[in-house]
Amino acid sequence: MVKPSFMNLPDEKKRVDRFFNPRSVAVIGSFREGYFGGYVMVRSLLKAGYGGAIFPVNPGYREVLGIRVSPSLREIPGPADVAVVMINARSVPSILTQCADSGIRSVVVVSDGFAERDAEGARLQAEMVSLARRLGLRIIGPNTAGVVNTANGFNPCPYEAGYDTIPQGVTAICAQSGMVNPQAVTYPDMRFGVSKVCDFGNTCDVDSCDMLDYLAEDGETGVISMYLESVRDGRRFLDSARRAAARKPVLILKSGKTGEGARASESHTGSLAVDDRIFDGVCSQAGILRLERFRDIFEMPKVFASQELPSGNRVGILTVTGGVAVMAIDEFLRQGLSLARLGDAESESLEAIFKGMGKNPVDMGPMMAAVPNGFDLYPKMLDTIIQDENVDALFAVLWANPAGNILSRYVETFEELKDRCRKPVAIWIYGPDAGVTAALGERLEQFGFPVFDTPEKCIRALGLACRFAGQAARGAPCASSR
Amino acid sequence: MVKPSFMNLPDEKKRVDRFFNPRSVAVIGSFREGYFGGYVMVRSLLKAGYGGAIFPVNPGYREVLGIRVSPSLREIPGPADVAVVMINARSVPSILTQCADSGIRSVVVVSDGFAERDAEGARLQAEMVSLARRLGLRIIGPNTAGVVNTANGFNPCPYEAGYDTIPQGVTAICAQSGMVNPQAVTYPDMRFGVSKVCDFGNTCDVDSCDMLDYLAEDGETGVISMYLESVRDGRRFLDSARRAAARKPVLILKSGKTGEGARASESHTGSLAVDDRIFDGVCSQAGILRLERFRDIFEMPKVFASQELPSGNRVGILTVTGGVAVMAIDEFLRQGLSLARLGDAESESLEAIFKGMGKNPVDMGPMMAAVPNGFDLYPKMLDTIIQDENVDALFAVLWANPAGNILSRYVETFEELKDRCRKPVAIWIYGPDAGVTAALGERLEQFGFPVFDTPEKCIRALGLACRFAGQAARGAPCASSR
Repeated sequence: MVKPSFMNLPDEKKRVDRFFNPRSVAVIGSFREGYFGGYVMVRSLLKAGYGGAIFPVNPGYREVLGIRVSPSLREIPGPADVAVVMINARSVPSILTQCADSGIRSVVVVSDGFAERDAEGARLQAEMVSLARRLGLRIIGPNTAGVVNTANGFNPCPYEAGYDTIPQGVTAICAQSGMVNPQAVTYPDMRFGVSKVCDFGNTCDVDSCDMLDYLAEDGETGVISMYLESVRDGRRFLDSARRAAARKPVLILKSGKTGEGARASESHTGSLAVDDRIFDGVCSQAGILRLERFRDIFEMPKVFASQELPSGNRVGILTVTGGVAVMAIDEFLRQGLSLARLGDAESESLEAIFKGMGKNPVDMGPMMAAVPNGFDLYPKMLDTIIQDENVDALFAVLWANPAGNILSRYVETFEELKDRCRKPVAIWIYGPDAGVTAALGERLEQFGFPVFDTPEKCIRALGLACRFAGQAARGAPCASSR
Repeated sequence: MVKPSFMNLPDEKKRVDRFFNPRSVAVIGSFREGYFGGYVMVRSLLKAGYGGAIFPVNPGYREVLGIRVSPSLREIPGPADVAVVMINARSVPSILTQCADSGIRSVVVVSDGFAERDAEGARLQAEMVSLARRLGLRIIGPNTAGVVNTANGFNPCPYEAGYDTIPQGVTAICAQSGMVNPQAVTYPDMRFGVSKVCDFGNTCDVDSCDMLDYLAEDGETGVISMYLESVRDGRRFLDSARRAAARKPVLILKSGKTGEGARASESHTGSLAVDDRIFDGVCSQAGILRLERFRDIFEMPKVFASQELPSGNRVGILTVTGGVAVMAIDEFLRQGLSLARLGDAESESLEAIFKGMGKNPVDMGPMMAAVPNGFDLYPKMLDTIIQDENVDALFAVLWANPAGNILSRYVETFEELKDRCRKPVAIWIYGPDAGVTAALGERLEQFGFPVFDTPEKCIRALGLACRFAGQAARGAPCASSR
């Protein structure tokens, strides 16, 4: 993967980049131990292995975790690229002035009590914005849990997360909510990893458009996943989204669809939600892939993280249970997929293995019950389907049972397939033992095959891959991250 | 809970009951070790603690797991209430005759290769059905993974499941698929447990109507959850469903909605799917609650398993993160729920705890960041909302973080609430550590509060509770299982 180079980026993108690649960071807050605040943030940075300088600032402390605390920004022992602010909202404007005086031009305002709180907070936020404009500062937040860059260990998480590092991967996750930050997500369990995380919070300055512009050109990021409640400038959003979606998959979950949801959004981040039908139209025009459920933000990017894009929408199904195939096919229509019709040679080859198996969905259930060690034939069955030129993508349903050699056959088969597979695969594993199911899933994801915990998610993921591939085929340059 | 009495049940229901409460069972199949067959089935029965007599039958074996194998049904050492058949499809008719000769009138046909396979199999199935009618037999299957009754350990599972027993509970789970049988489901992890499991398979005789009739009067069952691909007799189904739904919640997931799905269903269980719009109408008329996703079959019944029904559709939200509340409220409309408006006293009381917290959704995020040990106030906040007469149900969003006393506060609060809570609660727990999240969920479910793994599932579950309560309030007798 090519490392990002910002030498040729316009200035504003360089300034967004500073939030993720600072050489040094000033941490302004309380350093009392607890589950929130400056103490936790400094520890997060140390544990994640951030190599830049950390400058804690607070007149009431002398030292935190072995690092000297400066009484004020004026007295930090070197220049800081970024400040992270966790103090009382009313004191934030004066801190912004001090930041500017100290040469800091990128500020993450974690503090809350702004537009999401009340009219007084909204006034304070407006004051902060106009001050930032005057001083030439860029702000992420307020009311944000901040950012993460897995490439350099810059993880200034203000909340206790309990783990040290997030696996590095190609997915960037952004949200108008701290629900994507380390304290809220079991990132160490996400085997495909992430590149960057950003919570816009109240989005008083840096917003989804800035991040789309930045991430579109970020060499560490292969797929962008976002949760939004609102969009400020529809025209600019359409432009940014279209440019980003032409380069890599952009997946967006948007809430605030209903009137009540929109009002709740207002009191959450002080944002006014956009009419959902308008947003839908913008997504279609821009080539954005809309997500349906909260967990989709984290899970759907997997289908893009390490696989080729499909050449069409014809899905082959290899399953141990016919019932799930019936359910899956129902979901096909909604996701723009179709049931592949196997080629004659492939059909005959499968029929020869067991009567009735020569049609899609290929249900190996009856064979499994009738043929002792029937799983020995698994590699041949899978290969027959995946090599069929009438099949563009595969939905594989695996029964995780420790009996016999079932598990090892799956592992061998997918390990052998991993380097020569040119079609996306989505895997659902079911079985009587959650631990066995999870362990098998982990092995297969290590080979680059995404495993989902429901059959519906597999179909949604293949549907997204197919839609993005379709857009790419219609002329937009396609940037599969493989 | 009242034990079932079938003394006053019509004969056909008694005969369905025999499948679940046999005093003895004949197991006809192979007793070779493996992941499928008679050996596994006998071991399943022994491990589940089935107290009735087990009569393995096969001329090629003398003993299995310490039990004598009889060479034929004629030679089993006592009368059998049920036979479970796992032999070649073509031999099944002659076994049915032997069953009748031996006084067995209830037969589970696990064997496949019938209508789901081809025309020859369909002919064989028709022959089996007419034979059963003539001999006065009732059949579950063919092509079924059978039944389970957790009350008596009758668990003749033909596939290796790896665990011994399924926790006993009030949910009956039926399907036209073996996807609900022990080998496919992590039942030991389901803390609300199940009463009975039934896979209809090809449904040549005992069908969803028989099971609805039976389970409606089953004292062990408080909620019925079903997966169907097809319905044979719409009129009878409407009658049975209406009677069952008047007594207890009946939740149904139906697939085969699309033309392709319906065709796949035909080759899965040899059934012809019913038009989905017609089925939707039948559900509305009968008071059936339709499910949306596969996992719903297992998870949605939890909301009914140990909680009161709501008096209305007004939901209170107590959350650590505002973003999820916004998403949840979007889902309200689809599920027929509304955002509760808190009473004045309750609103003032919450506002006094922290500015801005006096409105629903009650977002304790800002308080949590600002007030050290803010979680000490959790019991008071939860109680204020749950006692508010303007709130009919609660969606609680918990941040599972091991720091400080957060986890213990949750546990104390819900433990204290459990015996006096008269409103349904649905809980979503998020956090950075999957193990901690799971452990907290387990504690809260032990208190009878259902925990779901996505916010959307919480809202769906409360929506179902609300719809069932609405039906009950409109005149149908309501049988909450508490």
